[in-house]
Amino acid sequence: MTLERSLLIPRLCIIGVGLIGGSLARALKEAACVGEVIGAGRHEASLQKAMELGVIDRYATDLRMAVANADVVVVAVPLGAMYPVFAAIADYLPSGCVLTDVGSAKGSVVDEVRRAFGRIPPTFVPGHPIAGTEKSGVESSFAELFRHRRVILTPLAETEAQAHDLIQRMWEAAGAEVVDMGVRHHDEVLAATSHLPHVLAYALVDTLARLDDRAEIFRYAAGGFRDFTRIASSDPVMWHDICVANQGALLAAIEQFTRHLDRLVEAINSGDSKAVLDIFRRAKHARDNLYRE
Amino acid sequence: MTLERSLLIPRLCIIGVGLIGGSLARALKEAACVGEVIGAGRHEASLQKAMELGVIDRYATDLRMAVANADVVVVAVPLGAMYPVFAAIADYLPSGCVLTDVGSAKGSVVDEVRRAFGRIPPTFVPGHPIAGTEKSGVESSFAELFRHRRVILTPLAETEAQAHDLIQRMWEAAGAEVVDMGVRHHDEVLAATSHLPHVLAYALVDTLARLDDRAEIFRYAAGGFRDFTRIASSDPVMWHDICVANQGALLAAIEQFTRHLDRLVEAINSGDSKAVLDIFRRAKHARDNLYRE
Repeated sequence: MTLERSLLIPRLCIIGVGLIGGSLARALKEAACVGEVIGAGRHEASLQKAMELGVIDRYATDLRMAVANADVVVVAVPLGAMYPVFAAIADYLPSGCVLTDVGSAKGSVVDEVRRAFGRIPPTFVPGHPIAGTEKSGVESSFAELFRHRRVILTPLAETEAQAHDLIQRMWEAAGAEVVDMGVRHHDEVLAATSHLPHVLAYALVDTLARLDDRAEIFRYAAGGFRDFTRIASSDPVMWHDICVANQGALLAAIEQFTRHLDRLVEAINSGDSKAVLDIFRRAKHARDNLYRE
Repeated sequence: MTLERSLLIPRLCIIGVGLIGGSLARALKEAACVGEVIGAGRHEASLQKAMELGVIDRYATDLRMAVANADVVVVAVPLGAMYPVFAAIADYLPSGCVLTDVGSAKGSVVDEVRRAFGRIPPTFVPGHPIAGTEKSGVESSFAELFRHRRVILTPLAETEAQAHDLIQRMWEAAGAEVVDMGVRHHDEVLAATSHLPHVLAYALVDTLARLDDRAEIFRYAAGGFRDFTRIASSDPVMWHDICVANQGALLAAIEQFTRHLDRLVEAINSGDSKAVLDIFRRAKHARDNLYRE
């Protein structure tokens, strides 16, 4: 048995070497479970940077070349850039090569894979690491990003057990805890816990940014505002893509939220102290139980 | 000249020795600019705790006794508990004693002082330190809470320059930067930057807490959610009181926000990528400029 054969993933291709793709490469290298890491993407300068940082071993801007002989291909480009990637590699993915992605919405990715490949390849394992920062780019990547974080896999009826197992072990090697979930359920849960808060933070900061006295208003923003709005510093293109990709579940979550906010407004307006206190107390209780800080 | 005479505030009375009142006492003691600090309030156990912690020198549960011979009285009780305090001390405030408060809304406090005293006492200086944590109680107080934070004073036409000056110097001694603002403007600015975010955070957490699959939903909440919802761990009673006290400005801010959110929903719904991106980019730009993290 050669050394290479004992590796979990002898040849790993990462398409899109940014915060997520770069951090995964770093983590798997640190865990010594990958052989060669090939980076791919549209921006050569960024790939060169990834080479300099030691995140990847070589790179290709031609996706056909990039996936050749790969054991695993991880698509880690923004959601809005995924379909062209799938379309470009559909006819060139090596036989038996496992395909996975890191998209924050899963229904749209599954649809795009089906469209690009004409079917769901049995080696396709949709995935989503619940990790990230408001920063982006390979310069921000670090090996510990996924440690003790959850990764959700949404395997399909077509997905082979072996492929599923390999991607699970890959994320575990990166330090993550892997859980399985249905595609639709994933999209609903993430709409509520991640996509909705981002939309609210963006909407709040932009509301204030458009006021005439915005300079003065921002001057009096304190610590609570800083924490509350941190996610509004996230990458606008990435979050635009998420809003498009998870439109249905996101709009449903926003509607649920605004109905709830309307009830709170009504309670404040009518001086219904009990109703206001009930909402605040229930929220504090839930938040305190969630994170014991 | 005796030692006492050289002190900024020989005798300081703090009514409500919690996070804010306790931290102010600690800061002024550390700055060696107060003589005796008398604590007052309804909860004797909490006052005893403040004594043990060295935050106050003595205490009184009878407000008439507490304010006797005081040079400055700071009312640091929740907004909803302020009126009874003003009413109780109105006839007993020593001549020349400067009265201030720390309420997060100023219009309501000014109204209550006018109602309790039958006029605005010329030694009344409404104030609001823009500082705090999601914790409360004297146990959470610390001397550095106001350091490099802003304190807004909203002096009235009746306010004497000498009283205004003393309160300004008191907060500066605690490490804060003091600015003056009109009462109404204060309430609008704070509604936008503080009260609105708190209402949104409470409403969001409670929306999720009421879902059937809340346990699972909260399980997948990541770092962004943690930061975004931290302020939902704040004291429900205090925030209820703020919503009541600043009802008008807060409801106006919520309406402005929901109109803006509606536009974003419309853009997501209609697939208007440019509009979505514009909002996200403007928000990111404003947030990045606000805090260079």
